Amino acid sequence: MAYDKENIFAKILRGEIPCDKIYEDDYVLSFRDIRPQAPSHALIIPKGEYVDINDFSANASDHEIVGFNKAISKVADMLGISESSGGGGYRLIANAGKDAHQEVPHLHFHLLAGRPLGPMVFREKQEYK
Amino acid sequence: MAYDKENIFAKILRGEIPCDKIYEDDYVLSFRDIRPQAPSHALIIPKGEYVDINDFSANASDHEIVGFNKAISKVADMLGISESSGGGGYRLIANAGKDAHQEVPHLHFHLLAGRPLGPMVFREKQEYK
Repeated sequence: MAYDKENIFAKILRGEIPCDKIYEDDYVLSFRDIRPQAPSHALIIPKGEYVDINDFSANASDHEIVGFNKAISKVADMLGISESSGGGGYRLIANAGKDAHQEVPHLHFHLLAGRPLGPMVFREKQEYK
Repeated sequence: MAYDKENIFAKILRGEIPCDKIYEDDYVLSFRDIRPQAPSHALIIPKGEYVDINDFSANASDHEIVGFNKAISKVADMLGISESSGGGGYRLIANAGKDAHQEVPHLHFHLLAGRPLGPMVFREKQEYK
């Protein structure tokens, strides 16, 4: 999957499309998913042009990697979903490529929380049909 | 959730329990899940004592964070599941805390691949009942 500068997250980063911002710094932008699947559903994206977690992991700078990862705890704490901030915890999901049905070709981590998220979803075989 | 030195991944790291190793370096160990939910189901864990992604993101050193993240693409490429290595892509999942049903109190990333993983699983509301 090639990077497409016209993907929706690229447009959000350029300010061409609005978002419900949660957090921003030099490396990341975090905002609420427009189709929330749980009471808290945040997206965290790097500002750099990386297609997926594999591309990011292989090619991002150390600063970008550290900044992106530090943002996870910051956002989770800001939303009060981490156990350390009094929440019940959260699930992080990132999809890479077609078998995972990645929908936008710009790396994004989903943080889902605010209710019991069920058992380890990928152990439900019906999910993989 | 507190770190428990007797958790199963701590025992694997100490060599007290065997694992089907995929990759190891100074920062991480990767091995196959003993209950695979897809043709490829790898776990990646940091060698440091971090309970979950939030703990790791907030408290790990930059070297640990970069090492852990770089391991994702290495393992995905070694397994041939990344699109850049000819695979169909993969899903990354990390559970933090009770609402996400985290089972082992040592951070672990799941990489699942090898067949279509269905739609974004957390969009299936029945998964959250």
